[in-house]
Amino acid sequence: MELQFLGTSSGTPSRARNVSGLALRATGSKHWYLVDCGEGTQHRILRTNFSPISLRAIFITHIHGDHCYGLPGLLASAGLLNRAEPLLIAGPPAVERFVRGVMDSTELRLPYQVEFSAVEPGWSLATLPDFRIEAAELSHRVPSFAFSFVEKSVERRLDIARLERDGIASGPGWGQLQRGEDIALPDCRVARSADYLLPGRRQRKVIVAGDNDTPSLLAAQARDAHVLVHEATYTEEVLQKVGPGPQHSSARATAAFAEEAGIPNLILTHFSPRYQQQGNGGATMADIEAEARFAYSGNLFLASDLQRYTLDRQGKLAALPLPNGA
Amino acid sequence: MELQFLGTSSGTPSRARNVSGLALRATGSKHWYLVDCGEGTQHRILRTNFSPISLRAIFITHIHGDHCYGLPGLLASAGLLNRAEPLLIAGPPAVERFVRGVMDSTELRLPYQVEFSAVEPGWSLATLPDFRIEAAELSHRVPSFAFSFVEKSVERRLDIARLERDGIASGPGWGQLQRGEDIALPDCRVARSADYLLPGRRQRKVIVAGDNDTPSLLAAQARDAHVLVHEATYTEEVLQKVGPGPQHSSARATAAFAEEAGIPNLILTHFSPRYQQQGNGGATMADIEAEARFAYSGNLFLASDLQRYTLDRQGKLAALPLPNGA
Repeated sequence: MELQFLGTSSGTPSRARNVSGLALRATGSKHWYLVDCGEGTQHRILRTNFSPISLRAIFITHIHGDHCYGLPGLLASAGLLNRAEPLLIAGPPAVERFVRGVMDSTELRLPYQVEFSAVEPGWSLATLPDFRIEAAELSHRVPSFAFSFVEKSVERRLDIARLERDGIASGPGWGQLQRGEDIALPDCRVARSADYLLPGRRQRKVIVAGDNDTPSLLAAQARDAHVLVHEATYTEEVLQKVGPGPQHSSARATAAFAEEAGIPNLILTHFSPRYQQQGNGGATMADIEAEARFAYSGNLFLASDLQRYTLDRQGKLAALPLPNGA
Repeated sequence: MELQFLGTSSGTPSRARNVSGLALRATGSKHWYLVDCGEGTQHRILRTNFSPISLRAIFITHIHGDHCYGLPGLLASAGLLNRAEPLLIAGPPAVERFVRGVMDSTELRLPYQVEFSAVEPGWSLATLPDFRIEAAELSHRVPSFAFSFVEKSVERRLDIARLERDGIASGPGWGQLQRGEDIALPDCRVARSADYLLPGRRQRKVIVAGDNDTPSLLAAQARDAHVLVHEATYTEEVLQKVGPGPQHSSARATAAFAEEAGIPNLILTHFSPRYQQQGNGGATMADIEAEARFAYSGNLFLASDLQRYTLDRQGKLAALPLPNGA
C-alpha cells in the first residue's frame, strides 16, 4: 500500500504546506483514492504520479473548507481531461449539498457522472476495488469521520512442506490448489485446496482520521490497524491556550491514544501554520515531534507535503525519498 | 500603478501557471484590488507582498470556476487572520449565489462583512479608494465583463512661470494654490488657484478583461486606456481547430484589436495549458507571441505568474524583475 500526502496544514495553506489531502493506492493498482480535498489539491496532484483520470473515489472527512474547497476545481479539471468514468464522492451529507450547489451556481457541466455516498455512523463500503472502507464517527464542530482502508484480499501461499510430504509433485496442479481449486491426483486421490493453503496474513488496515478532539473514539477501529493518520494540530501547551472551542487534538493526546491502542505506526498531520520547520524563537515542528515521541513508542512520522509512505505486507511503514522537484 | 499576475492559465492550472488572478494597486496605497480569484489564488498571494487583510475589493469577471473557485478559501483565510474590515465582491449576480451557497453549505462563518455588488451592463463604482471602476460587457458562454480601473485623481502641478511673471513669491501660498485654495496677496489682489494650475495629465486607465471572443466590444473603453489585459487563449490556428464553442480569443484577434484601438500597452494572459514555455515539437508560448507581434506594434507583454508591472505617470508600462523565490 502507498500513501502520499498532498497537504498537511490546518486551516490555511502556508508556503510549505497545503491544506488537507491524502492519496492512497494499493501498490500496482490502476485505481487510487483521495481522502480530503482542500483548495489546491489539484495543484499538488500535478506534482505526483497520480492523475484525476484514474482517481476512483474521494472521501471527505468533514465539511470544513480546508478539507473540501478543492473539490470543484478537481472535478472541473478531470472534466477538461475528458474523464468518462463515474467518480464517487463519500462524505457527510453536507458534501453533496456543497458540490451540487457549486456545480449549479457556477454552471459546471461534467462529461462524467458524480455519485455521492452519504457517510453516517456505521457507514461502510465494500464495492470498490482493493479496499473495504469503514467510517468511524469522531468529535468535532461539525460531523467528522475517520475512514479505515482495509485490504480486500491477501495473497494465498501454498504449504510446500505438506505438498512434498504428501507426495504431490510440483506442476500446474500447485497453481490450481493456490487458486482455491481441488485437484484429482494420478493415484485417484483428491487434493483439497483448503488443506494446502497456509493461513493468510492479517489484512493491512490504514485509518485516516478527520479533525477530532477525542482520539479514543477510534479505539475499536484501532485494534487491528497497522497505521493511524491523525491530526496533531497543536502541542498540548498551545491547545490549552487556544481552548477547547476549535475541537482539535494535541500531539500528546493523539500519541498517547496510539500508544494505548498499540498501533504500530502513527503519522501526524494537520499542523497549525504557527509551527515552522525552523523557528527563530517561535513554535517549531520539533515541539510537536518531541511531545509525540514522549508519549508514543511506536514508529512515529510527521507528515510533510508530497511525502510518500509504503506499507509492506509485513505491516512495516517506511517513508520514501521525496521525488525530484517536489 | 502596479499590477501583479497571480495566475495566467486558462481552465486548469499547470505546474508553471495557476488559473486567473490579478492584483492591482495604486503605488503607495494601503489598499489593493483583486480581479478574478481562481483556485489557489490565496496560495499565490503568499508569494507576494499583498495580504488578505489589506485587500479592499474583489472583481470577478465571470462565474466560470477557473475565475472564482479560489474565493471561498481566500475569504476563510482572511477570517482566520482576523480581518475586520468589510470586503466588497463585485461580479455578475451568479457570484453572490456561489459565495453565499458555499458559506451556507460549508458552515463558513467570517468575522467581517462580505458585501456584494451585482455587475450588469453599465455598472460603475466611484466609492472605492484610488480608482473609479467601470464595467464593459463582453461576449462569452456566460455573462462576462471587463473592468476598467481609472485613476481617481492626478497630482496638481503649479504653473511656476506664471506665478513668477505675476510676482507671486514662493512660500506657503504656493502650497495653498496647489491644493486648490485661492489666496489673498499682500497687495490685496486675490490669486485664484484655477489660474495657476497646469492642465492635469490624463488619468491612467487599465482595462482588465474577462473571457471574451469579441475584443472589439472594448472599443469605447479602449479609446483612452493605457493598458489592456486581455485573454489570448489560443493561436488562431488552434482556435480554428477548437471551433467557436468555448468563445475565446486568439492572440491574433486580441492583438489586432489593440492595434486598431491604438492601445499603447497590451498584456496577454489566460493561455491554454497546451502552450509550453519550451516545447519539444508541441505548441509553445513563442507561437502566441509571434502571432501577436505580427498584428500589434505597441508594447507587448505575455504575462507569467507572479510577474509584476508598473505603469508610470507618463503611461509607460514596464515589467519588473521576478522576486526571489517566486
